Amino acid sequence: MKINLINPNTCQGMTDKIAISANSIALPTTQIIASSPQHGPESIECAFDETLAAAALLDVIRSGEEQGVDAHIIACFGDPALDAAREIATKPVIGIAGAAFQLASLVSYRFGVVTTMTRTLPASAHLLQRYGYEHLCSGVRATDIPVLELESLSMQTYQLLADECRKAIKEDGAEAIVLGCAGMSDLANELSDELNVPVIDGVTAAVKLAESLHQLKLTTSKSGQYAAPLVKPIHGMFNHWNR
Amino acid sequence: MKINLINPNTCQGMTDKIAISANSIALPTTQIIASSPQHGPESIECAFDETLAAAALLDVIRSGEEQGVDAHIIACFGDPALDAAREIATKPVIGIAGAAFQLASLVSYRFGVVTTMTRTLPASAHLLQRYGYEHLCSGVRATDIPVLELESLSMQTYQLLADECRKAIKEDGAEAIVLGCAGMSDLANELSDELNVPVIDGVTAAVKLAESLHQLKLTTSKSGQYAAPLVKPIHGMFNHWNR
Amino acid sequence: MKINLINPNTCQGMTDKIAISANSIALPTTQIIASSPQHGPESIECAFDETLAAAALLDVIRSGEEQGVDAHIIACFGDPALDAAREIATKPVIGIAGAAFQLASLVSYRFGVVTTMTRTLPASAHLLQRYGYEHLCSGVRATDIPVLELESLSMQTYQLLADECRKAIKEDGAEAIVLGCAGMSDLANELSDELNVPVIDGVTAAVKLAESLHQLKLTTSKSGQYAAPLVKPIHGMFNHWNR
Amino acid sequence: MKINLINPNTCQGMTDKIAISANSIALPTTQIIASSPQHGPESIECAFDETLAAAALLDVIRSGEEQGVDAHIIACFGDPALDAAREIATKPVIGIAGAAFQLASLVSYRFGVVTTMTRTLPASAHLLQRYGYEHLCSGVRATDIPVLELESLSMQTYQLLADECRKAIKEDGAEAIVLGCAGMSDLANELSDELNVPVIDGVTAAVKLAESLHQLKLTTSKSGQYAAPLVKPIHGMFNHWNR
Amino acid sequence: MKINLINPNTCQGMTDKIAISANSIALPTTQIIASSPQHGPESIECAFDETLAAAALLDVIRSGEEQGVDAHIIACFGDPALDAAREIATKPVIGIAGAAFQLASLVSYRFGVVTTMTRTLPASAHLLQRYGYEHLCSGVRATDIPVLELESLSMQTYQLLADECRKAIKEDGAEAIVLGCAGMSDLANELSDELNVPVIDGVTAAVKLAESLHQLKLTTSKSGQYAAPLVKPIHGMFNHWNR
Amino acid sequence: MKINLINPNTCQGMTDKIAISANSIALPTTQIIASSPQHGPESIECAFDETLAAAALLDVIRSGEEQGVDAHIIACFGDPALDAAREIATKPVIGIAGAAFQLASLVSYRFGVVTTMTRTLPASAHLLQRYGYEHLCSGVRATDIPVLELESLSMQTYQLLADECRKAIKEDGAEAIVLGCAGMSDLANELSDELNVPVIDGVTAAVKLAESLHQLKLTTSKSGQYAAPLVKPIHGMFNHWNR
Repeated sequence: MKINLINPNTCQGMTDKIAISANSIALPTTQIIASSPQHGPESIECAFDETLAAAALLDVIRSGEEQGVDAHIIACFGDPALDAAREIATKPVIGIAGAAFQLASLVSYRFGVVTTMTRTLPASAHLLQRYGYEHLCSGVRATDIPVLELESLSMQTYQLLADECRKAIKEDGAEAIVLGCAGMSDLANELSDELNVPVIDGVTAAVKLAESLHQLKLTTSKSGQYAAPLVKPIHGMFNHWNR
Repeated sequence: MKINLINPNTCQGMTDKIAISANSIALPTTQIIASSPQHGPESIECAFDETLAAAALLDVIRSGEEQGVDAHIIACFGDPALDAAREIATKPVIGIAGAAFQLASLVSYRFGVVTTMTRTLPASAHLLQRYGYEHLCSGVRATDIPVLELESLSMQTYQLLADECRKAIKEDGAEAIVLGCAGMSDLANELSDELNVPVIDGVTAAVKLAESLHQLKLTTSKSGQYAAPLVKPIHGMFNHWNR
Repeated sequence: MKINLINPNTCQGMTDKIAISANSIALPTTQIIASSPQHGPESIECAFDETLAAAALLDVIRSGEEQGVDAHIIACFGDPALDAAREIATKPVIGIAGAAFQLASLVSYRFGVVTTMTRTLPASAHLLQRYGYEHLCSGVRATDIPVLELESLSMQTYQLLADECRKAIKEDGAEAIVLGCAGMSDLANELSDELNVPVIDGVTAAVKLAESLHQLKLTTSKSGQYAAPLVKPIHGMFNHWNR
Repeated sequence: MKINLINPNTCQGMTDKIAISANSIALPTTQIIASSPQHGPESIECAFDETLAAAALLDVIRSGEEQGVDAHIIACFGDPALDAAREIATKPVIGIAGAAFQLASLVSYRFGVVTTMTRTLPASAHLLQRYGYEHLCSGVRATDIPVLELESLSMQTYQLLADECRKAIKEDGAEAIVLGCAGMSDLANELSDELNVPVIDGVTAAVKLAESLHQLKLTTSKSGQYAAPLVKPIHGMFNHWNR
Repeated sequence: MKINLINPNTCQGMTDKIAISANSIALPTTQIIASSPQHGPESIECAFDETLAAAALLDVIRSGEEQGVDAHIIACFGDPALDAAREIATKPVIGIAGAAFQLASLVSYRFGVVTTMTRTLPASAHLLQRYGYEHLCSGVRATDIPVLELESLSMQTYQLLADECRKAIKEDGAEAIVLGCAGMSDLANELSDELNVPVIDGVTAAVKLAESLHQLKLTTSKSGQYAAPLVKPIHGMFNHWNR
Repeated sequence: MKINLINPNTCQGMTDKIAISANSIALPTTQIIASSPQHGPESIECAFDETLAAAALLDVIRSGEEQGVDAHIIACFGDPALDAAREIATKPVIGIAGAAFQLASLVSYRFGVVTTMTRTLPASAHLLQRYGYEHLCSGVRATDIPVLELESLSMQTYQLLADECRKAIKEDGAEAIVLGCAGMSDLANELSDELNVPVIDGVTAAVKLAESLHQLKLTTSKSGQYAAPLVKPIHGMFNHWNR
């Protein structure tokens, strides 16, 4: 199968990193096509960033559909544009936050989330509510590590992240850790070894769920909320969407 | 004061209509500047439409700030891009759905919402949850009147709308009606006379709230969630946001 | 328009103070009629106080209706007797807690409430729940300043109040402050200057909402929950309600 | 023990009726003192009625305390003035709605409530929420039988009530019925025989709970929310509360 | 009446203790029959323990029914097998956690729970949710006193328990204390004297509720969820359930 | 990998059926070991059945651990004994209801559940709440097809099931269907073809999730709630648990 792995941030470093993570776990028969949108901010750290990135990543969904992929993964912890993507795609679309919450809940009673900027805490809260995992989350902790700094992580920054995970376990009662940024994807194994609890990265989690849906021949229901958008004139910089 | 009244749909007819509604209720000292984005779909009826419109309307927020407006109104019942707009604006930003819910709750125990397409029902549900008005809403009813059809309303379509309002009152126990589309703005008075309950249009409601905030010298707190976005490279069609 | 501004506490000092606040923000065409009930406790600080005050303030609602006012404001943060007042009035009735929550939510992601006695915390919690603003409130903090002490505020007491506001901002993440007592109405501007976040006083908020409803020709729906009470014999000290 | 059984409605007929119900179930060592306030409406059917009755019934609580009763029961399904009563009493205060919900939940998975006027449905909804029994209630149904009509019930009205109970069982899935008015107290046994499910009357339920608390030597905690009110001047018709 | 008082732990010491507590409060006409199952763990401290105990205690329910008891009490704070017991019994079945929450809510605004092992905190959280008392609970605190250690309590362990109660009052705002283990049943009076707030033991609370239901002639509704199980083959060690 | 696929019902027919379903979807490298407990009811249709089955299936978990399996699946829609199983197992334990909800939420906005007996509806409601999927479920519908009848399904019974699925889609707005019994596992593909929406069977869903966890090297966190049970004497028919 082919998976359209989308990094909604326009920074090549993170795209490369998540491609490596995804390939490390994918079945031999799975081909990972990793890319990021042509437009939008280098990193997504507030609602403004996310609003631009959301519009831009839809192009990559369409492009994936045209290339005949079997599933799409939106690899940014805010799961931006998930509903819109499901409307325009015929193949399943998975967000990495939702994927991580699902697997975390299978291996712990309560999981903690450790993420980047304090500014993104409300976004995490909203994701937990949207997917229904609020009561299974022991808390969300921000490290205030900027997203782009994750591209070349210093030992000091790694320790800062590990320390926040330890607080999630000791102070909040987290029994597993969900990493709150695609840019942390390469750290899951190392952190799990150090912390001695399951550490869940949404990118690899989403790859396995995409493969699962594909093997089960399950794709997005087009009979209701996720039916294709009604055709209507679309103007200006978005006029490539007119069909 | 000057109010930046934004129709996120790119259809001029609705922009003209809401300008009339807003002017009909504005204080003599209030100047209404109505416009719509250059980019995006003619009408917003699903998540895909909203995702494009959200990115596009932020340009109009910035333009309003540059013109020195005192408040912004996002005149689409989905309140698209509200958080992002509050981040980039220094002046208050009001969505018409939130405005309508607030005033409806002041004049009724439970209000009903009557909106356009069935497809938008989840969006209304999300708005009620976001603002905390779920328990004060007797139900949301879709008429399946397309947004653009509201531009030149036939008598038959008006009756369809009025009938759905009547069902909201009789069957759901609505004591007031919130109109679920900016395009219905001109119908509030006529419907209220016919239905004998308060009918709340979000556009006029938002104008009064914008004036209220201005007179109270209240504007968006920039100390937390709505602080200005961090500066970072923004690529492609959004590169005009680089500063 | 004429606004019936009711101080449910029977202390003249607070009535005078809120009249000044209301007049400072009212439109030139708005006449503020401030009064307090003839009966009941000097200040409302527990359920017993509120139960007596609730019965007593209904007389002032009726009196306002007889004087032809266009709106009523219940200027005590517990919004006592709001439902009963809406039943007996034909004009809209606004409570200052609800008014403050509404405007605070327009200018912040999360607001804090700073109030008087610890004893009143459950009342604030109930108000947030009733109006649906629990998830938008970062916390309610009591200063244990007695209501009547607010009449002539010492510098020390002011600092105590300001300190609690600072804790709400720093520790709870409040981005705006709602003042939890009508007796703090005169402090909003000073506190806002000092704290550098929006500070919302329910009295002035309610005046703007009352004017908004009046201009929009919106008043309480009498078709359901707020219909006039059924006529029946009323005995004893309340027999003036027999019609 | 002595129980102060208060009918907050000022209609002697209902007071007599609930005295009979209470005596029918009380232990031989329990003395029931039934009375109603001197002031207020003959029946409580809306927020206005309840607001007056609440202030008036506090006199009866005080009078009971002075007579040395061991518990107070507020025998109106709205449980009016419960918090205020707990503040001024040293002995436990029980509302019949709360009492009925408790016992109903011990003998059913989901219970239905059948009450009087449609106008009181929001009050029932609020009671279920306050006490936490929303998820254990299959629905609240109004019969639109006026409270005073229950004093001398015709066969026709009885059938109307029984029919609504049947609908609660068949359509809503109620496995037990809570009677939503003290005036229905005498009908519990007859209805239970006819409907073949448990029928819970709050008056008798409250008597047993009052006896239970008394035997367990449990009374209202005065260490927090229900501490005695602070002493302050109380004016006008309520000045008998000055101590 | 006869009450089947079941200690689901298979430790005789706790059975003896709760028998004493129950007898100390029962009416002279009430006969307490205390026993524990033949099978299962000596103490219940995790889901595994509870799963075994649940299956085993159903035998004691059946045995009680055969002996003609009038009510069953499941005297373990997890209220194990409550639904299953209600299905197989014709007489009411009461769990001590639910009983304690009910009476605690009659004498306080918010109660705290002080229990045994940290491991059992999720079970307490689930009980509060199931019965609807989450919002009336100020918090649950674990002492990490093993259940069996309660059989012969040292002064030191008693102080540890009292200290945790004090924290519940001071730090969490508890106005009453619910004891979170049947093994603490004998300590309620002493703790209440020392702490000066109501202390509720579920065993004695359940005895009074059982007597109340009996006197009110109320028993489990068999018309829905708690109807008798369908007859079907039951194999292996449970084949004594075949009828 | 080896998966311990447990049918908690003691009916061989269903065990055979789910083994076929599981094998049809498992990776070539996955070995399915299907079995059912030696003890307990032939089918699980009420709390009594589930209580016995829960205790009995723990033996099969231990047996699987001893055989060195890599994951356990509890293949009964009530997910019985899930917490206890996670305590005693070192390898992940997945319930089929939770698995089905997860995958259904990836391919629909709202899914419906179609299950067996009306008696089991509260169990389904509890599962949705436990896992957090209440808001993503359009409703649960019972067919009143007994579990054992699913072993050899008549055309008539199949149509009954398909009709209920159609009602879930048309009347409730379900966009996908979750099959509410392991015994329906073989019908998913046929129903999906007929209904034209995704139909999710928990057995196959759980197999894919088990494989996903295995490949990701994720297993149950033993650091908190799911730590191994404390060792203590266990009596009677459960004494094989003594170690």
